[in-house]
Amino acid sequence: MRKDTQLILAGKGVSTPEMEKVAESERLPLDIVRSEVASGRAVIPANLHHAGLAPIAIGRRFRTKINANIGNSAVSSCPSAEVEKLKTALKYGADTVMDLSTGGNICEIRAAIIAESRVPVGTVPIYEALSLVDDPMDLTAELLLEVVERQARQGVDYMTIHAGLLKEHVPLAKKRKLGIVSRGGAVTAKWMAAHDRQNPFHEEFDALLDICLEHDVTLSLGDGLRPGCLADASDAAQFAELDAIGDLVRRCRAAGVQVMVEGPGHVPLDQVAMNMEREREVCDDAPFYILGPVVADCAPGYDHITSAIGGALGAFHGASMLCYVTPKEHLGLPNAEDVRNGVVAFKIAAHAADVALGRPGARERDDAISDARAAFDWERQMELALDPDRARDLRSEAIAERYDLEKRECNPDDDFCSMCGPKFCSMKISAEIPGPSTMDADE
Amino acid sequence: MRKDTQLILAGKGVSTPEMEKVAESERLPLDIVRSEVASGRAVIPANLHHAGLAPIAIGRRFRTKINANIGNSAVSSCPSAEVEKLKTALKYGADTVMDLSTGGNICEIRAAIIAESRVPVGTVPIYEALSLVDDPMDLTAELLLEVVERQARQGVDYMTIHAGLLKEHVPLAKKRKLGIVSRGGAVTAKWMAAHDRQNPFHEEFDALLDICLEHDVTLSLGDGLRPGCLADASDAAQFAELDAIGDLVRRCRAAGVQVMVEGPGHVPLDQVAMNMEREREVCDDAPFYILGPVVADCAPGYDHITSAIGGALGAFHGASMLCYVTPKEHLGLPNAEDVRNGVVAFKIAAHAADVALGRPGARERDDAISDARAAFDWERQMELALDPDRARDLRSEAIAERYDLEKRECNPDDDFCSMCGPKFCSMKISAEIPGPSTMDADE
Repeated sequence: MRKDTQLILAGKGVSTPEMEKVAESERLPLDIVRSEVASGRAVIPANLHHAGLAPIAIGRRFRTKINANIGNSAVSSCPSAEVEKLKTALKYGADTVMDLSTGGNICEIRAAIIAESRVPVGTVPIYEALSLVDDPMDLTAELLLEVVERQARQGVDYMTIHAGLLKEHVPLAKKRKLGIVSRGGAVTAKWMAAHDRQNPFHEEFDALLDICLEHDVTLSLGDGLRPGCLADASDAAQFAELDAIGDLVRRCRAAGVQVMVEGPGHVPLDQVAMNMEREREVCDDAPFYILGPVVADCAPGYDHITSAIGGALGAFHGASMLCYVTPKEHLGLPNAEDVRNGVVAFKIAAHAADVALGRPGARERDDAISDARAAFDWERQMELALDPDRARDLRSEAIAERYDLEKRECNPDDDFCSMCGPKFCSMKISAEIPGPSTMDADE
Repeated sequence: MRKDTQLILAGKGVSTPEMEKVAESERLPLDIVRSEVASGRAVIPANLHHAGLAPIAIGRRFRTKINANIGNSAVSSCPSAEVEKLKTALKYGADTVMDLSTGGNICEIRAAIIAESRVPVGTVPIYEALSLVDDPMDLTAELLLEVVERQARQGVDYMTIHAGLLKEHVPLAKKRKLGIVSRGGAVTAKWMAAHDRQNPFHEEFDALLDICLEHDVTLSLGDGLRPGCLADASDAAQFAELDAIGDLVRRCRAAGVQVMVEGPGHVPLDQVAMNMEREREVCDDAPFYILGPVVADCAPGYDHITSAIGGALGAFHGASMLCYVTPKEHLGLPNAEDVRNGVVAFKIAAHAADVALGRPGARERDDAISDARAAFDWERQMELALDPDRARDLRSEAIAERYDLEKRECNPDDDFCSMCGPKFCSMKISAEIPGPSTMDADE
């Protein structure tokens, strides 16, 4: 069994089986994978104890990854419901899942998710720690580390730790319209104020690194001060924390611990590129894992769309992983259908960025579905769709509505779509224009 | 009654009532509105015969507009269904609507839409012309102009005319993966090949301008060669037509006819900005009215999202109006629910661009909803949502699912959302952190 982290092994010039699998799936030479991991520009979250993991790399040289958050709220206790969400997330293409459970039988839910998941599993350990105390102010560094260690032994591949949020940053966040919207960040800030002490994860960062090193847990440095609305974006609080995170990135790498950095949040469209560039500079190219970002505050019920816009642009300008946002964001916890809508919206965002960045093979699926369109091969179009079930359902609905209007029998094999009808199909007409379609008109 | 076009009057230094209304709704000085119209950088589509029109301006200095396409297919004949779609489009904020009906009682449907619509109405006159001949090859320039004139007298505010697609461009399009996907473009191209003649709208462009001048119809120069897939984007065919359109823009302006330019289509994310810049250069800053663009071909069923991504970026980089795309794109004709989803997705895209461009008052709605979030004022949040019904429905669903899990009575007045539950709300915790929230921590 592997004993060192991917980062340490890559630094020694060792190619691990995980790197080999990444090279194959990303269609890149193995030495590029190894050098990206060795430099810290990419991570391969792969806890030594996560059996059955299909490893992936998160970094700028690789396909953009998407994460789906699942997990219960403070009150429900239903591992089977969370496993159903997990299966939905995986079916539609989530590259990682985070279990954000905050109450009930957290351990049991997490065990079920790790056992079921072939993709890396992430957590926010402070959530479990909070479930173990009556008052959040009773948290201790010892308890936090105890939880981290238990989760590491359980097989968690990456953990969000809000270690960059320092006591001196809190007054900056008090000036905001929405204050601190990260749950871990808000609790940490209140704890620091109540005890007049520094962030316990920051004070015990070396002990945290020891645990991560032992099990190869990838740290995901959480942005406890991410903006919660457009008005708070790119402010002094956000960037003060980012500077502290940059220092922690260097400590992780020096210790041989894989690390990525979490980012906003709510960001106006014109500030997305700047935010991506700033993270790369401040955090020495550590993979940036962003939440959306949503680019408008006023569309509750459609935040999978507001954030797919921000996510596509973020990935194009430098983010390596996008945390999905579902239509329920700002309204409630997602159910399985929300998970589906969130995952597909983010597959689109990630894919659009990968095509634009010319990632190996990225446009093949688009070209294949376009060929199927030209050939009126509906079944092939459906197979190639990011969500074949949805595409089939909508086409069936349109056909049924059309034949209902025409008051005649439905024939789903008609080789036209109901947009134009049989007599007015642009592609059929286009194909009838005389002249060789392979001629080179430039000559 | 006004006799000249907005362009001619603006050129004479006359401020029309339409310009005054635009200045008020856009919160801009009247002389800016007038000079934008006079230069042709903006249009105010307002047919002299469209009673009850609430005028809007389309141009780079103004709020990004969105258009919703409605209209029947070749076979159905139901004005009431189209009026229902119109009402849905207007309810959710469409700035213009296009009636794309291609068959049945086109005139009756259009009359109903113009009578009901307070927003500008656009059409593609070749669709009606085609409904009047047995074989598309029987089209004549006379018939096309006859239809344009009839529609102009009926009160159509703007018309898509594919006059820039020239005979010599067709071989370029034959080289493509998907050929010609514009219906008007495909018919025109086949007609030119069959008759070995130039585009009739191009040959009779002066006669067309006479009609537009008389009724103040705004021309929307259609991109008959817009790419139908990522592989065909930004190719020789597309840009050859754009050059011809640029020449036509100058002829329109010289004749006193308002003009805008239509654009793609399917465009990879990295080519969106370039496409916007190229249009501005080639077409002397004529308002650019783009269809999406979709930034991925492989997501049928979700093309409102693929295109909202492209649309937001397009508007940020130069487009003045976005034509919506519904989830049914590439699958069938939209129903009222599809219209709703398309309109809201594009309101988001347009709004995100307006916020990013710093348009007057654009962020007020976001700031207000964020204030309501901070105050846990759920009713106010719902009122400010782009689609209040959807936001309310999703919140109710989440609350019901949560109380179902907790097996206790539902209380919708709880001042927390089901994302975090009552004990773990980041914003509540954040508000409890001691220290004045108005302090200036920089000092």
